Amino acid sequence: MDRKVRMGMVGGGEGGFIGPIHRMAAALDGEVELVAGCFSRDPGRARSSGEKFGLPADRVYSDYQQMIRTESARSNGGRMEFVAVVTPNHWHLPVSVAALEAGFHVLSDKPAACTLEEVLELKKVVEASGCLYGLTHTYAAYPLVMQAREMVQSNMLGPVRRVGVTYAQGWLAQPGDTHGSKQANWRTDPRCSGESGCFADIGTHAHHLVEYITGQWITAVCADLQTAVAGRHLDDDGAALFKLENGARGTLTASQVCGGEGNNLNISVHCELGSLFWEQETPDRLQVKRRGQADAVYRAGVDSAYLAEKVRARLRTPRGHPEGYIEAFANLYRDFAAMVRCKRDGRCIENVHAVGDIAAGVRGMAFVRGAIESSGQSAWVPLTPYWNQGGSMLSVTVAKC
Amino acid sequence: MDRKVRMGMVGGGEGGFIGPIHRMAAALDGEVELVAGCFSRDPGRARSSGEKFGLPADRVYSDYQQMIRTESARSNGGRMEFVAVVTPNHWHLPVSVAALEAGFHVLSDKPAACTLEEVLELKKVVEASGCLYGLTHTYAAYPLVMQAREMVQSNMLGPVRRVGVTYAQGWLAQPGDTHGSKQANWRTDPRCSGESGCFADIGTHAHHLVEYITGQWITAVCADLQTAVAGRHLDDDGAALFKLENGARGTLTASQVCGGEGNNLNISVHCELGSLFWEQETPDRLQVKRRGQADAVYRAGVDSAYLAEKVRARLRTPRGHPEGYIEAFANLYRDFAAMVRCKRDGRCIENVHAVGDIAAGVRGMAFVRGAIESSGQSAWVPLTPYWNQGGSMLSVTVAKC
Amino acid sequence: MDRKVRMGMVGGGEGGFIGPIHRMAAALDGEVELVAGCFSRDPGRARSSGEKFGLPADRVYSDYQQMIRTESARSNGGRMEFVAVVTPNHWHLPVSVAALEAGFHVLSDKPAACTLEEVLELKKVVEASGCLYGLTHTYAAYPLVMQAREMVQSNMLGPVRRVGVTYAQGWLAQPGDTHGSKQANWRTDPRCSGESGCFADIGTHAHHLVEYITGQWITAVCADLQTAVAGRHLDDDGAALFKLENGARGTLTASQVCGGEGNNLNISVHCELGSLFWEQETPDRLQVKRRGQADAVYRAGVDSAYLAEKVRARLRTPRGHPEGYIEAFANLYRDFAAMVRCKRDGRCIENVHAVGDIAAGVRGMAFVRGAIESSGQSAWVPLTPYWNQGGSMLSVTVAKC
Amino acid sequence: MDRKVRMGMVGGGEGGFIGPIHRMAAALDGEVELVAGCFSRDPGRARSSGEKFGLPADRVYSDYQQMIRTESARSNGGRMEFVAVVTPNHWHLPVSVAALEAGFHVLSDKPAACTLEEVLELKKVVEASGCLYGLTHTYAAYPLVMQAREMVQSNMLGPVRRVGVTYAQGWLAQPGDTHGSKQANWRTDPRCSGESGCFADIGTHAHHLVEYITGQWITAVCADLQTAVAGRHLDDDGAALFKLENGARGTLTASQVCGGEGNNLNISVHCELGSLFWEQETPDRLQVKRRGQADAVYRAGVDSAYLAEKVRARLRTPRGHPEGYIEAFANLYRDFAAMVRCKRDGRCIENVHAVGDIAAGVRGMAFVRGAIESSGQSAWVPLTPYWNQGGSMLSVTVAKC
Repeated sequence: MDRKVRMGMVGGGEGGFIGPIHRMAAALDGEVELVAGCFSRDPGRARSSGEKFGLPADRVYSDYQQMIRTESARSNGGRMEFVAVVTPNHWHLPVSVAALEAGFHVLSDKPAACTLEEVLELKKVVEASGCLYGLTHTYAAYPLVMQAREMVQSNMLGPVRRVGVTYAQGWLAQPGDTHGSKQANWRTDPRCSGESGCFADIGTHAHHLVEYITGQWITAVCADLQTAVAGRHLDDDGAALFKLENGARGTLTASQVCGGEGNNLNISVHCELGSLFWEQETPDRLQVKRRGQADAVYRAGVDSAYLAEKVRARLRTPRGHPEGYIEAFANLYRDFAAMVRCKRDGRCIENVHAVGDIAAGVRGMAFVRGAIESSGQSAWVPLTPYWNQGGSMLSVTVAKC
Repeated sequence: MDRKVRMGMVGGGEGGFIGPIHRMAAALDGEVELVAGCFSRDPGRARSSGEKFGLPADRVYSDYQQMIRTESARSNGGRMEFVAVVTPNHWHLPVSVAALEAGFHVLSDKPAACTLEEVLELKKVVEASGCLYGLTHTYAAYPLVMQAREMVQSNMLGPVRRVGVTYAQGWLAQPGDTHGSKQANWRTDPRCSGESGCFADIGTHAHHLVEYITGQWITAVCADLQTAVAGRHLDDDGAALFKLENGARGTLTASQVCGGEGNNLNISVHCELGSLFWEQETPDRLQVKRRGQADAVYRAGVDSAYLAEKVRARLRTPRGHPEGYIEAFANLYRDFAAMVRCKRDGRCIENVHAVGDIAAGVRGMAFVRGAIESSGQSAWVPLTPYWNQGGSMLSVTVAKC
Repeated sequence: MDRKVRMGMVGGGEGGFIGPIHRMAAALDGEVELVAGCFSRDPGRARSSGEKFGLPADRVYSDYQQMIRTESARSNGGRMEFVAVVTPNHWHLPVSVAALEAGFHVLSDKPAACTLEEVLELKKVVEASGCLYGLTHTYAAYPLVMQAREMVQSNMLGPVRRVGVTYAQGWLAQPGDTHGSKQANWRTDPRCSGESGCFADIGTHAHHLVEYITGQWITAVCADLQTAVAGRHLDDDGAALFKLENGARGTLTASQVCGGEGNNLNISVHCELGSLFWEQETPDRLQVKRRGQADAVYRAGVDSAYLAEKVRARLRTPRGHPEGYIEAFANLYRDFAAMVRCKRDGRCIENVHAVGDIAAGVRGMAFVRGAIESSGQSAWVPLTPYWNQGGSMLSVTVAKC
Repeated sequence: MDRKVRMGMVGGGEGGFIGPIHRMAAALDGEVELVAGCFSRDPGRARSSGEKFGLPADRVYSDYQQMIRTESARSNGGRMEFVAVVTPNHWHLPVSVAALEAGFHVLSDKPAACTLEEVLELKKVVEASGCLYGLTHTYAAYPLVMQAREMVQSNMLGPVRRVGVTYAQGWLAQPGDTHGSKQANWRTDPRCSGESGCFADIGTHAHHLVEYITGQWITAVCADLQTAVAGRHLDDDGAALFKLENGARGTLTASQVCGGEGNNLNISVHCELGSLFWEQETPDRLQVKRRGQADAVYRAGVDSAYLAEKVRARLRTPRGHPEGYIEAFANLYRDFAAMVRCKRDGRCIENVHAVGDIAAGVRGMAFVRGAIESSGQSAWVPLTPYWNQGGSMLSVTVAKC
């Protein structure tokens, strides 16, 4: 049977940012085929996008519900198998729910939904559907982030002491930055983004990175969010102190108003015997400082024998031939394709860590909610109660057999 | 008509290094479709490769001549339009000639052929064919290399004074490195590689990078090649002094026996008013030092407004979302696809600099020949006479109208 | 009259860390002469130290009070003019007070004293004495830190939005690190260090750096201190959220238990129009990212014409001849020597920012106190009330006329 | 007896570049005392310099011969012990000869003299004198350069294959750069500099660094020197291929016309099992790439236990407290002071590698001569014959007992 997995896409029409990224990521490894799309609610834009992306006219839609209905009616061999949700945040929930309820797997851009309540609702739908649900937390899909995870979780550096993660962008630094930018507009509009701006948009990436690398959940937060540019309705900057399960402490900063910054996401994980540093803008290096040793720089490469084997399996080129953001994103598509093939074949599903599951989505929104409440009360807020609202966080939809 | 350009591939079966790179690069932007392939001379390996790459069995071949004959017989709308030549060096000439003579465009891995004589012969075939011929000098396809070219050629840094280029690899550093490695074996075998090992394999990349950025040809060379690992039959290490058309001087080092090195290609271009530095292992940065100013680091990004517009057009992501080696390679495929579409439509062809033309191929092999002769004679060797053997180098097959 | 200023030193005997640094810093520019010393309370160690440092036997003491009495009795032309206090923290107060009350200027290692109460008491003594008092906050004395200050305070980057400062060391990461180390012992002993370990020792450096660069005081703090290594009596790790006078926010992390870290102090100052980054471990570079511009790296050098003139005046070498930690420390001695000469000559005193004054000392200890209280209460703590306990912080002892 | 060694200085009056560096370097560790000086041939400038540097008037001279005569007549306990020669190049020979013949040790700025003939003459004088002679090749005095030497010479990286050294400056990049600059004027004037400009001034540093690290002499050279800025009489730019004793190859580039460059000296040493990289502008790091291992960065620090013990002995601060150019220079003074004390005490002299001896001076000027001749003849020139002109190079004046 065909190795390729068939994808329908909702959102991501011409001219957007994240849609093309998803399409390139899906195409790179030849394991996913775009077979249907609802790229825009505007029929003309939907059509011209579909044409450009090489789809036949009868599989291009301007109404996602119609797309789901029509595709459901197709025969098994040609029907789309999963829906990539690439819309602004406020469409994540309805599109995901509709797809899941029709029996399609879902791979969604983050955040999973606009609010904690929405994502808890989504979690129930995911669990009831028996379908796969994945979140594209891109940064966890970089191979050297997985290497960091391996090193921390194998305890080779001893217990985690302190984590520092910063995600600094500058594209909303000035009042005028929201004028005439579709990207900027919906991200600063509570109707599209939900209850948080910056913390939901990029703070959740930072939150996920901490949990992914340390293998520990963030259990409490003390945050200070602000709207630095007057006139906005959501946070555009903030920072938080946090605690991990083992008692380790951390700081998380997320800001979109740091003039001159690009996409400066970096993390340091300090342990008793050594410290790790990773910067997204040079993602193929992992700096490791160990007591009594020369500093080390781990370099990505299928031939870097000192990397964990599963890390090398996520790489495509030898050391010194840099892979970047699109390749990280492609890892998510490759992983999700593997999961869909497993499901298709009735095999059990590998635990592919880098694709976020719905539980990670819940914890992300719980973190946002906790940060907002903490900031309002100037106090520490525990996060575990939020998780319990939606059932146990210990269940993971993607289980290893 | 279809935007996608149809590609047949010769070489590049499963398990090789450069074949998958070509396929990912071709797939990334959705402008090229793999429709036929002769991935191996071994029928079984050819077949399983074709299957893996999603080709129908009747378009998978184990004899490139048969592939060319059969594809020629296909109707216009489905027939492959160009041949990607991804074989070891000694097949570059026969495959390219066969394809061109049958009217197919050719996009070839470098070097164009094994020897200067071969590439001069190929040049005649290219010129007679009326077909497009392109060489995949990947490194010139990095956006910030084009930015360097723009800055140097616009004279904003004043006249070029001195160029230093080094290409250091370590994968052949030890005698045992050729055991059991297909890659290593053919590269150190004169029957497959031609008259040079390291200088033909990676020295030509360095040579092309110098000419691409400065816009000047290397006119004379004084080289010192050696076989550092005893028992080999070709150079595995060497360096050269060189001169550019304007009298500027340079050094070029190429080595595959530098223990611990990955793919360390770097270039510095020193001009009267400033100096540029680019390193392939962090390709999305271009360091610029100008007299009396703070050092600058130009960063890749579709939104980096200070980059030349045509440089930004070669990028896919905003600043801080790194693109790498595969994306650079994809630029070549995107460029070549644009050239094929132009040709297809009878439009005149844009001068897309990053795809090397046959004249660049001749100059590359002339450089190798000059280096070998210089090294043997311990003397400077002018390169212009070599070019003239094959007709004027001023003709470029890809001309702007 | 002699350009050289005469120094007596208390503490800093052979084998310590900070004593030799002070002596090299004092010697470097030939403006300070060591004329007397009480290097140890152990007479033998005091004597051998004095001999090694080239002092005549009659100016070597093992009792600081005797040194102050004896030096007071000397004639004007030869008597020491200031006392460098280089002892463990708990001696800072008594030595400084004794010196000031005897009419000697004081240049003290930080912190000014062990507790907020002590430093407020010291402040009164300083004010009553009419003598100069300086604190060696080394990091503010790096030329490019002054350049950062100039750029932020001139508003060329617009209003400050967010500051992030981290000071991570690893030398106390393991329980055994305090065994057999004099340094480590007194720093983890409340009787010698005061009420805080890490925050007093290095957190105060980070605090001072923020205020020095931004020109704003930290007005409120929300901290989370911990003793990461069981069995210690003081904090060895902590982090804080803070607010600046203009409403900007920040995070401050200070830790001595980050395995593998050396002396990793770094700061980022994000403003509306650009962001600055400085790392102490490469102190001769200042990274500047401005909206719409290539990233810039300001490089130290007397010939770096783009640096502020007063920054260049703090440098000794041309660009590319790195100055480091000792040179930064020497800037403090050069500045303090200039202040002493002014005082000596009855001239008014230049406002030399890099030498911390007693008010900076008070704010530093107020920050430590605030952090401790905040951490205990899990709440924000305003710092301004602490300042007022000791009189106005607006008075600066070193005023420009 | 006094630990301090007494120095007289010739050259280095106020306003120059290298004089203050020598004085700070001499002062830093308190092992050298400036007791006499002939800072200028202009009596007024000599006097005011002497006053500024704190010398009594009767030990300040404007005639170096008079200084040598007068100091010779002083009693043993106060007389200067060595002469630091800090003049423009053409004074190196006469001042050194006069000092040596009067029985004073000499520590000279490089090059040892203006021409090969001069330095061979000087060598005879050194050998006849029984005095110590040292050359301040500063860059070899950086601790991590010694670490590189240790690693290469201990063979832990296997045999050296290829060396690349580049010394790029920009301060003479434009015609106007020699106007009004004393530094620039004498360096481009054959009467002051000798037969070479750039290669003598900085090429000799690069040459020395190669030999110091590899422990091998450069035995043959093929060079290409040029005068890039029209109107000058000496080379201001050049490059060379070279060979080492073991057959390894290298490239050496030295240029003073690279616009925007500061003092960019960097070296790579590629061996069979690994490669080393050191850059003078971040001198406290040594990058090490070894086959099959993560890249390593060795960091300077008295507490960096992985550094060779003798390397740590050349450091003053713990890891993360950067030492720089002045400290490297101070290492030379500290070493030379130790040598003088040994000589003074009749003890035999330690082999302190970092201070260049006269044989290194000869090899340096032989390299310059060979490069000039090679460049004129476009041919390889062996260097060993030049050495033999002045006797065996195997003799070293500074021998270990």
